[in-house]
Amino acid sequence: MLRDFVVTDIPEEEELRAKLKEERAKLNAFQMKIKEAGLPVMVLFEGWNAAGKGAVIGKVIRNIDPRFFKVATLDREPSNEEKRYPFLYRYIREIPEAGKFQFFDTCWMEEIVDGVLKGEMDDETYATRVHSINVMERQLCDNGYLVVKFFMNISQKEQKERMGKLLDNKNTRWRVTDEDIKQNKHYDEIQEVYDKYLNDTNQSRTPWYIIDATDRKYAELQVLQFLNQGIDIALKNHALNVPILQNTFPMEKVQKLSDIPLNDKFLTDEEYKLELKKLQKELKELGNKAYRKKLPVIIAYEGWDAAGKGGNIKRITAALDPRDYVVEPIASPEPHEKARHYLWRFWTRLPKTGHITIFDRTWYGRVMVERLEGFCSENDWQRAYNEINEFEKELHDWGAVIIKFWVQIDKDTQLARFTDRQNTAEKQWKITDEDWRNREKWDLYESAIDEMIAKTSTTFAPWHVLESVDKKYARIKALRIVIEEMKKALK
Amino acid sequence: MLRDFVVTDIPEEEELRAKLKEERAKLNAFQMKIKEAGLPVMVLFEGWNAAGKGAVIGKVIRNIDPRFFKVATLDREPSNEEKRYPFLYRYIREIPEAGKFQFFDTCWMEEIVDGVLKGEMDDETYATRVHSINVMERQLCDNGYLVVKFFMNISQKEQKERMGKLLDNKNTRWRVTDEDIKQNKHYDEIQEVYDKYLNDTNQSRTPWYIIDATDRKYAELQVLQFLNQGIDIALKNHALNVPILQNTFPMEKVQKLSDIPLNDKFLTDEEYKLELKKLQKELKELGNKAYRKKLPVIIAYEGWDAAGKGGNIKRITAALDPRDYVVEPIASPEPHEKARHYLWRFWTRLPKTGHITIFDRTWYGRVMVERLEGFCSENDWQRAYNEINEFEKELHDWGAVIIKFWVQIDKDTQLARFTDRQNTAEKQWKITDEDWRNREKWDLYESAIDEMIAKTSTTFAPWHVLESVDKKYARIKALRIVIEEMKKALK
Repeated sequence: MLRDFVVTDIPEEEELRAKLKEERAKLNAFQMKIKEAGLPVMVLFEGWNAAGKGAVIGKVIRNIDPRFFKVATLDREPSNEEKRYPFLYRYIREIPEAGKFQFFDTCWMEEIVDGVLKGEMDDETYATRVHSINVMERQLCDNGYLVVKFFMNISQKEQKERMGKLLDNKNTRWRVTDEDIKQNKHYDEIQEVYDKYLNDTNQSRTPWYIIDATDRKYAELQVLQFLNQGIDIALKNHALNVPILQNTFPMEKVQKLSDIPLNDKFLTDEEYKLELKKLQKELKELGNKAYRKKLPVIIAYEGWDAAGKGGNIKRITAALDPRDYVVEPIASPEPHEKARHYLWRFWTRLPKTGHITIFDRTWYGRVMVERLEGFCSENDWQRAYNEINEFEKELHDWGAVIIKFWVQIDKDTQLARFTDRQNTAEKQWKITDEDWRNREKWDLYESAIDEMIAKTSTTFAPWHVLESVDKKYARIKALRIVIEEMKKALK
Repeated sequence: MLRDFVVTDIPEEEELRAKLKEERAKLNAFQMKIKEAGLPVMVLFEGWNAAGKGAVIGKVIRNIDPRFFKVATLDREPSNEEKRYPFLYRYIREIPEAGKFQFFDTCWMEEIVDGVLKGEMDDETYATRVHSINVMERQLCDNGYLVVKFFMNISQKEQKERMGKLLDNKNTRWRVTDEDIKQNKHYDEIQEVYDKYLNDTNQSRTPWYIIDATDRKYAELQVLQFLNQGIDIALKNHALNVPILQNTFPMEKVQKLSDIPLNDKFLTDEEYKLELKKLQKELKELGNKAYRKKLPVIIAYEGWDAAGKGGNIKRITAALDPRDYVVEPIASPEPHEKARHYLWRFWTRLPKTGHITIFDRTWYGRVMVERLEGFCSENDWQRAYNEINEFEKELHDWGAVIIKFWVQIDKDTQLARFTDRQNTAEKQWKITDEDWRNREKWDLYESAIDEMIAKTSTTFAPWHVLESVDKKYARIKALRIVIEEMKKALK
């Protein structure tokens, strides 16, 4: 979980401040609701030395009335007295009562991992301890506790720098222990032990949230966001909480739609024709090769109404053997589809090996139209980013090529095309009242799409934006990407 | 999970019939509620060959309208066509729609385990597959599915007998394959592979239920009970279900309270005095030894009002060094205790190593007074048997001796003692209105206690019934058991 973990969407300073303010106020408002609902909230902080566990706890508790929380500092060896009890004893003693918060500055993880690193814990004892912890966390959930687990993550380099700063100053030198220096030196081996523990205790109701603790303010924001999200769900569900799992897939850095220039992306007719012919020929050969090599290919199209999805798809299919591909136009789900897991209708439309399925609109409807039209609950669409990444990871691991296109135009271009459709007899079927209604929600859609692209551009299934004010340009770009991705997979 | 698994409470024929009738009717009544609530119910059957998966599915579906269920038979190698899709594909295709049942005659387990047994699946692929399955089961739950997983268990001997019967008959011989015979021969190795898979996929919201399939009728009953229990909870919690986990601890065979003779258990004064002196001397020495060897000892007393708990405890403590033991009288929980996990007040009262804690009433209040007086929900006390066994297992693994006494008298004896207390000035403080009220619920309590003893008499922390119509007899028996258990642990 740790090795691949990269956070890419660190907000700008101003946005960060605004969001922090919002989340702090949210937590502050939650404390009375927690009191009224009698919800016990247990927050576990684990992580690297010098990652700032103490500091972030200090900031979080500022938003809570001192009568409603306690902090347990267990970041130390058990005392001789404590060693005379079951290992869980000193932690369980500190669990919160109903309606209150308890923060743990390290909890049962630290002791276990420490034992492994010191070579004092054999595999069997480790397995027993992990089992005990999983049982206890499950029991706490079953009995109405909200348990939120944070791992504060920093890189080896960052850790070294932080320690260096402390060592350089006479007054802070004492804070860096030999232990700390040793940890930094053996970062990689320790990361492996951490990672194993995180995986072994990553249960669906008590999942780990990994916090990128490089920037202290941003670390605070992430903690507050996950904590507030957990509280919100627990209060709504009377503590039978099903937390929203953190997206822990490796992500690509993406641009906001509004930052992508459109008007400089065009081709002359001549350029277009030449390229089209060349690329289609190449794709045809690749299609045959993919068939022989049994490579499954999934091409997913999303985009604004009138952005030119249909024409774009045609330029792809024109190059393919009709026996090898299928285009799946996705409309509202049929009743028998609506009655199942929302990904079911896509699971059942997957290509088999050697085949290509082109989805004209996709599973991303969940976080666009279904989100904005209220066809699913907030919990549903919030959960969907991770569920979709899991789905695509499954397909990737199976061996599929996954190509996701967002066909992009600006608002004016859409208006021009809508008007043209309305005024041209043979195009009128293409424009409906719903298109006009959706257009009114352009800004809402745009911010939902930005969020979607940011949260689902995984390294194994990134989004590609096709600038389609000039449809020719978009078609050539699509062909190039399909060819490139298929080539990579066939190598 | 499988190796230790023993079911001990197989009901008598008549009771079995009555319970079967009841559970069948329950399932029948549930189907309309499932339809109304739009709950999709997915039931997975896995297990040994010849364990009767098909037969039990056949019986279960008899209670459901054919429009509301389907059976997917996936107990076969994937076809060449299916092999061209992701391995989950052929299972996901079959998931039920909202309001309907789908039964799987083997699901994703079989294929994985088969691959391992044939040596076709390396550790990494196995880990990936298990991860995919856990993710999918979690996604289904998150999206409102009830997923119930059964493993049909029979012994090697039983399997051999069943196959033998089929082989003996010309008309059924074809049903036993070479594969089946091989499985029986390599039962132990296969059990290990099964066990590993069951452990690896035993998630808190999709736990495994292991069915003792030796007796076919009883197997049906267990399946119906777990299925109905799951449906009940899912309907109550709007599918954010927290299933009640199966008690999978090794159990001791116990007697019903009413089957235990009381009146032949007595001692003369002389016998009593002699024995008492001898045993207390022995216990004193053991107490010292336990202190030196740092053995923690937990003695738990439960019993009827006026059964003689107090006097019994006194005879134990009289033999101990006052610095080494503490008696914890347990009354109603204080507000700060009530505000926490119900086991917290016992966790925090544990003895440290080398010490003895005697609980005068215990955590079993959860499944007696709290159950019968409605101080907790049905879900709470149903869950508690397993939670308590987990708690005691944790203490056992830590190294504690756990001795649980039920001090038993009959109803008439209690009446005589109550009347005596009422009529004797210096004993009046011992009798309250509450005692009389509890007495009125004797029968309810008795059946709850029978259930408690049956469900929590684990091999590592069994119940001992102290026949206490003659209090002297009960005291001597208690001393003997404490001595015996401490001796065993100190060896």
